Parts: sequence; structure tokens; C-alpha cells
Amino acid sequence: MGRVTDSTRIRTVRVREGRLYAGRKADRVAVEEPLDIRLNGQQLSLTMRTPGHDIELIHGFLHGEGIIAHREDISEARYCDGAVVDNSTGFARNTYNVMDFTTTAPLLLPQVTRNFTTTSACGVCGSESIDAVRQKSRYTLMPSWSLDPRDLLGAAGALTAKQAVFARTGGVHAAALVDLEGNLLVVREDVGRHNAVDKVIGWALLEDRLPLRELFLLVSSRASFEIAQKAYMAGIPLLACVSAASSLAVDTAEEFGMTLLGFTRAGEHGDGRLNVYTHPERLDLTGAEG
Amino acid sequence: MGRVTDSTRIRTVRVREGRLYAGRKADRVAVEEPLDIRLNGQQLSLTMRTPGHDIELIHGFLHGEGIIAHREDISEARYCDGAVVDNSTGFARNTYNVMDFTTTAPLLLPQVTRNFTTTSACGVCGSESIDAVRQKSRYTLMPSWSLDPRDLLGAAGALTAKQAVFARTGGVHAAALVDLEGNLLVVREDVGRHNAVDKVIGWALLEDRLPLRELFLLVSSRASFEIAQKAYMAGIPLLACVSAASSLAVDTAEEFGMTLLGFTRAGEHGDGRLNVYTHPERLDLTGAEG
Repeated sequence: MGRVTDSTRIRTVRVREGRLYAGRKADRVAVEEPLDIRLNGQQLSLTMRTPGHDIELIHGFLHGEGIIAHREDISEARYCDGAVVDNSTGFARNTYNVMDFTTTAPLLLPQVTRNFTTTSACGVCGSESIDAVRQKSRYTLMPSWSLDPRDLLGAAGALTAKQAVFARTGGVHAAALVDLEGNLLVVREDVGRHNAVDKVIGWALLEDRLPLRELFLLVSSRASFEIAQKAYMAGIPLLACVSAASSLAVDTAEEFGMTLLGFTRAGEHGDGRLNVYTHPERLDLTGAEG
Repeated sequence: MGRVTDSTRIRTVRVREGRLYAGRKADRVAVEEPLDIRLNGQQLSLTMRTPGHDIELIHGFLHGEGIIAHREDISEARYCDGAVVDNSTGFARNTYNVMDFTTTAPLLLPQVTRNFTTTSACGVCGSESIDAVRQKSRYTLMPSWSLDPRDLLGAAGALTAKQAVFARTGGVHAAALVDLEGNLLVVREDVGRHNAVDKVIGWALLEDRLPLRELFLLVSSRASFEIAQKAYMAGIPLLACVSAASSLAVDTAEEFGMTLLGFTRAGEHGDGRLNVYTHPERLDLTGAEG
């Protein structure tokens, strides 16, 4: 099942108040390593990621790209063996940086080829280019619930407390799936914010929980187009980011019918602040106007 | 020459202290739009970027990928016309989101093909995967100067003051090329931190300044493998990031002979703090031990 190597020890020289403060001291940095994602023996993507939860990551990635819809669509997931030959011993050593996924139905493959051909050699204009990277979700986003913003802000505070790798390194993003009472169901961290999202959605797919209609996605980072799209593919009706949202995240969330929140910051007393960019109808803002 | 649309007005609902604070108020978000990069008529890459300085961005991108070395390697750079047909008028409207670059020498193309084939269908192991995305730089990094950390920290403070789009939106990263007295020569902002770096290196390439031996690269973001590699390709001996560095950025900087600094934060009185991960010999830490 690979390794979980999320941070590693190094030695740093520290400058404080503009001057040398200390010689080489122990420190920790977030681990970044390549993950070579193969599907049915063919390389599909190479992503830089923090090792750990690779199987979730790849399931989430394949789901976000519209390649798989259910966990049953993958029959086998394995780390490729014999990846590096150790010169001193002549034996092969597994780097755990190459994974091959096998799809249950071989007919999925032409779809993949078409999909990635479209993305890597798409239409003649900007509009068509966006369309080329856009995936059609199996799910529509239902406006079926109303969330107390204080529960949401409480979850943002709880996420900060759960960011273990960030606490050690300051170098990773986090993503969490949160229920409507503000409970964190799963938290994942990664040097890539897209990867952290793929890991939590991959977790949900493996738990057979899709579509995620009664949950929301909370990310410690900014929200860009891809993050909004990954949430949409999983049927998530609300995306809250701790930092800013981009114009394209706002436009696509509006179009998807997704509630998009930015600068989601927990306060000290269960309160806090946030900005609602789209579809405020899922937040219960009645009764407590300031 | 396209547009410079770095931020756009939207209306947000604001929650403060856990409660509705105000109805829809004017706000600004950073613009994210796709840029379809074509080389000699073939699509090479689709990147999500903040419009503006696209020509610099693409020059920097092509340089980082080892496709071009000098500005003379590109004979023509143009926005593709007629990108979107306006249904109401029937006329074509340019989105300025598709650019076609033409190389001077047609023999550059096989090299591109080989390069991207390698990246998208690379070797059999993690180690070979890293090698596949690694480019060999034309330049070695010379340990020929010594920088006062206070000049460097002063530049970090100056960069914060120059981040105009960030000040309006909180949603972009910045990159700057800085001389050895701490003067910012060029600053660029983008929703993608890689794009901001491509823009400043593309600027330097168009100014015929490569290799950048007497400068350093300052980024407002984290430092990952790709950022370190882009600096290495341009001959930049020192990379300072405001946030954390990843393990692979540290490992590759060590190997390249590059000085890598993290958590570079200016203080209020011309001082500040930073961590030196690799090659501290380019910082003048003598005479002022704490």
C-alpha cells in the first residue's frame, strides 16, 4: 500500500532580524514527489504530489476527468514493481511513484483517448478551449438544504486544527468533506491543492458515497476553475475556500448552480467571516442580519 | 496586443461575525482564463492564467521547457483571430485566449515532439519520471557573488507593496527579478504561480538578458520543483520564496548549486527573517551573527 511520507527532515540556516540567527538547525519540509498515473498500462498523467493516499488520489482524478463514475469501474490498482535498480545490489527497489489502474470495461479506453485528445489539441478559440476541459457531470446540484454559516465557520476552524502536515511544514494545502452539521468527515493534505481535492473525492468514491449532495467541500487554498469543476463532477452543491476565488471559478459555480464561498475564516468564538460569490440560497442568512 | 484584464468586478454577500453583514456589495476577483498555446500551428499546452503579458508568459514557458533559448528562436507571435462567433452579429470576436508562436528554425519541431512525448509517456519508474520532466540547463550556476540578507529582505517588502492585483483581489501570486542591491527589475502577477515566473523569465529573454547570473528570483508563493527548474534553466543562482519550499525543490536546488530560501518575510525596519535551505555561501552572513 505504498508509504505515507508527508514531511521530511532537513537542516536550515536561519536568518532573523536580518542577521544570522543560528547555524544548521533541524527543520521539516513537505514532501513533493512525482506520481506516474497509468491506466490499462498506458501513461495518463504525471502529477507532483505528496505521497500517501495515492489510490484515493487516482480514483478522484479519474472521476474528475469523467473517466470513471463508480469504484466498480476499476478492477485493479497496483504500484508497479521493480521501478529502480539499486546499483550496489543489482536488485530492484520500488519507489511507489508509479501506479497502474485497470478498468473493468475495456470500452472505457476509447473514451479516455477521445477525452485527452480533446484536452491536448482542442478547438480554435478560448470558448472552445474551456469547453474542452469542461466535463459534463452525471449529477445536478440540488438546492435542497440550508446551512447555518456558523456551522460552516466552525468547520473552517476545525480544519485548521487538523492540518497536521501544514503545522509541521507550512507547505501543503488541505481539503475536507464536511457534513451539514459542520463535522469533518475526511481531511487530506498535499503540496498540490488539486491533489488534496482528488484525495477526498476519491475517498468518497471508494466509500460509495457519490453524489455528495449532503456535504460540502472545504479547501484551505484558493478556488480556481478546476476545483469548482471537481466538486461539480461529484455532485457537491457548496464549495468554501479559505482564500480567494478566481473569476472563472465564480462564473462556472454560477452556471453549475453551486454555492461558492471565499475568504472563509473562522473567528475565535464560533463566529467568523466569509464572502458569498454565488447562490447564497444555501446559506441560512435569515434572522441574524447585522 | 491583447488585453490586460487582471481583475474583474463582481457582487458578493458578506458574512461577518457569523452573521449576514451586508447584501450584495461590489468586490473584485482575479481573472482566470484559459490560454491555448500553439507552436507552429499545433497545440502545445493549455494553461489557466491571468490575461496580460501573454507573450512574455509563452516565451518563458517555452524557455523553461527547453524549446527555445533566445528571442530570435521565435519569428512570429500572434493572437489567433476569429476565435468566437458572436451570435447576434454573426461577426467573429477575438477572445485573445489563443496564441500561435512560430519558430525560426523548423528543425526545432522534432525536438518539441520528442520532449513532450517523453513527458506524457515517460519511463518505467519514479526516478525516470523525474528525469523525464527535468530539463538540462544551458547554464551552470556560478557562486560569484555574495548578497546582504537585508537587501534581499528589503526586496521582499518592496514586492508586497507592488502586488497591485493581489491588493485588489487576494487571489494572485507574484514573481520578481531582483538585482543584487535589492531593486525589483520586473514584477508580474498571475493566478498561477508558474505563470508569474514564466512571465518574468519571458520578459528577461525578450530583453536579451539571459543567463540571469547577477539577479535573483523572488516569488510570493511556495517553491516547488518546477519553480526551481525554471530558475535553473534561466541561470538564476538564487531563489527566494515567501512561503515554504517542497522537498523536491530543496533536493533539486542542492543538486543544481542553487541557493534556496524559504519563509522570506520582510520586517518593519529593513530587517526580517528567512530560512536558508541550500547553498548559504551566496548570503553574506559574516559579521552579524546573532
